[in-house]
Amino acid sequence: MENFSFHNSTEIIFGKETESSVGGEIKKYADTVLLHYGGHTIKKIGLYDKVIRSLKNEGIKYFELSGVQPNPTLAKIYEGIKICRDNDIKFILAIGGGSVIDSAKAIALGVPFDGDVWDFFMGKAQPKDAIALGVILTVPAAGSESSAVTVIKNEGTLMKKGLHCHLMLPKFAILNPELTFSISAFQTACGAADIMAHVMERYFTQTKKADLTDRLCEGTMRCIIENTPIVLANPKDYDSRAEIMWASTMAHNGILGVGRIEDWGSHKLGHELGAVYGVAHGASLAVIFPAWMKYVYKYNIKRFVQFAARVWGIDPCFGTDEEVALKGIDSLTKFYSKMGLPVTLKELGITDDRFAEMAEKELQWGPIGNFIKLNKEDIVNIFKIAK
Amino acid sequence: MENFSFHNSTEIIFGKETESSVGGEIKKYADTVLLHYGGHTIKKIGLYDKVIRSLKNEGIKYFELSGVQPNPTLAKIYEGIKICRDNDIKFILAIGGGSVIDSAKAIALGVPFDGDVWDFFMGKAQPKDAIALGVILTVPAAGSESSAVTVIKNEGTLMKKGLHCHLMLPKFAILNPELTFSISAFQTACGAADIMAHVMERYFTQTKKADLTDRLCEGTMRCIIENTPIVLANPKDYDSRAEIMWASTMAHNGILGVGRIEDWGSHKLGHELGAVYGVAHGASLAVIFPAWMKYVYKYNIKRFVQFAARVWGIDPCFGTDEEVALKGIDSLTKFYSKMGLPVTLKELGITDDRFAEMAEKELQWGPIGNFIKLNKEDIVNIFKIAK
Repeated sequence: MENFSFHNSTEIIFGKETESSVGGEIKKYADTVLLHYGGHTIKKIGLYDKVIRSLKNEGIKYFELSGVQPNPTLAKIYEGIKICRDNDIKFILAIGGGSVIDSAKAIALGVPFDGDVWDFFMGKAQPKDAIALGVILTVPAAGSESSAVTVIKNEGTLMKKGLHCHLMLPKFAILNPELTFSISAFQTACGAADIMAHVMERYFTQTKKADLTDRLCEGTMRCIIENTPIVLANPKDYDSRAEIMWASTMAHNGILGVGRIEDWGSHKLGHELGAVYGVAHGASLAVIFPAWMKYVYKYNIKRFVQFAARVWGIDPCFGTDEEVALKGIDSLTKFYSKMGLPVTLKELGITDDRFAEMAEKELQWGPIGNFIKLNKEDIVNIFKIAK
Repeated sequence: MENFSFHNSTEIIFGKETESSVGGEIKKYADTVLLHYGGHTIKKIGLYDKVIRSLKNEGIKYFELSGVQPNPTLAKIYEGIKICRDNDIKFILAIGGGSVIDSAKAIALGVPFDGDVWDFFMGKAQPKDAIALGVILTVPAAGSESSAVTVIKNEGTLMKKGLHCHLMLPKFAILNPELTFSISAFQTACGAADIMAHVMERYFTQTKKADLTDRLCEGTMRCIIENTPIVLANPKDYDSRAEIMWASTMAHNGILGVGRIEDWGSHKLGHELGAVYGVAHGASLAVIFPAWMKYVYKYNIKRFVQFAARVWGIDPCFGTDEEVALKGIDSLTKFYSKMGLPVTLKELGITDDRFAEMAEKELQWGPIGNFIKLNKEDIVNIFKIAK
């Protein structure tokens, strides 16, 4: 096991009707808040009205910034920073999924910073301070509700970049599975693929022994594999929605990655597809991850045998290590297909070939991934497998 | 899944040589510290010297209170409170296992409180404030290093009582598996039984669906079952010691109990044995837990079938549900025996019968446990099974 430090102070408030407590939670930190959200969904499901009622009950003044898009952009973040500065706002409430939360996190870092917030993403400056934020989660997928990570798209350079900084850790995350009943089948499946990917980026490691974390990863994947078909068949199954919602948080709060070297190569390739083609993040991962696996499994075949046996229940005596490993990868692909997700670039609607261009953009800070280090040729090959 | 809130802000600093950072960690909070520990072990393994060196490097002034015993007592806590008050100490460093940490937690609560700290345990007063504490863990078992719980013995009344309060959550916990190399085989086994018990108190629930947490519990138990024999055979196996150390923390940091109604009946019976006979906590649990299981399994046999199948790898088609469930309980008992633990009261050295007396003492606040509520007759019967 590798040395590690772990710290996650986000308070999780989980369950039915928990969103009604939001005013009281914010009141612990501030009297004025920026509500940050996407579109009309939160109004359609009655969430917006509940939030406003709770804020009014606590006498909290609020400003609003809506219109966050999937693959959140820098322009919106600049707008948020300006509103917070102009109105002396010290707390942001993100209401939505990963894009909204990531946007709020970047705003939180940008408010007290004199320079351009994008400099943090480009490694040209280090965050020293941030205003506080809280979350009401409506889409379980990104795990941003209790992570110290944000991923933002610079629409000018077509770059999508992640940033890790503990100052952005939300003070609280309110998770009510009922708020996820109306998520479409496709978005539900995309969420499942994103959660699976967050676990797999940690699971596929060359660290020799990390038994407990292996087991926790495998349990989280089993939970997603078992519960996603249930909610696709019955979108209002509270208990299964709850399992998926809690798994989304657990998958990305850091616990599943301690003591091991994580990979994150596939995520970066997925981000390229998001930046260049604007495709849904979860869908891009459903395409990239199996392709990455087929390209790298030989570099630690025993780990892929374990994945096949423990996650997919494949008998490890079924064949050679290679046959078992490939059957595991095939099980993952079939699972994605069955959920209605694309598993090839073609199915994702991408038929041109900008593989080399994307690889070069991704490699400007050096090779990516840790399971094996990926260079340009590797990345192009993975994209080719994904065709 | 039940509604829940979860918050755990303890910073985990895990791995080789991490104890050398302790001065810097304390410096974030205070310039004066009370070192609280048991006996000579920390000197024998060189830990004491390393801590002093680190404190001196940071210019931190220190006082000492050693001599904490297993089943920590109130007298020592009063002593610690006085030292802290007399010297305006605002930080306690607990160096040891659960008893030392629990003692430090009670001191931390007692320092700013005008009345008798025992009143908190008896429910006669509510803690409002505490001084800060940090931990260097030397015995992985109790999970106290990142829990909000302390268990103290009142040597006057022979009462052992637990208290839950977030003010006691350690600021940091330093976990170096190398510090556990010299733990005796018996203490290692006791630790494993304690960790298993912390998981099982959460696992055995009547909550209908909590899939993810079930899986995480099962994974943690598997990790203990697989790694304990390795360290018993080779006490200096770093990776397996690391697995056990991290499992001890995970088992009791709250994550494994979210969304489900926990039990804790067996722990309370174990505490009775600790209070009355002074037996090691882990050993008492190795005796009580299988007895409790044999008494209650019929009240949710499917959960015991799941325990047998997923934790012990017993084929659920092997027999009737009852046969499978009993085979699971038997596997646990055999595991304890094989590790050299007592599995009957007789093996624990208890041959008299104070069952009714202990039951009455434990029941003065009402029935205990949640899987089924235990009354006096139930408790006496469980003790009888444990004979």
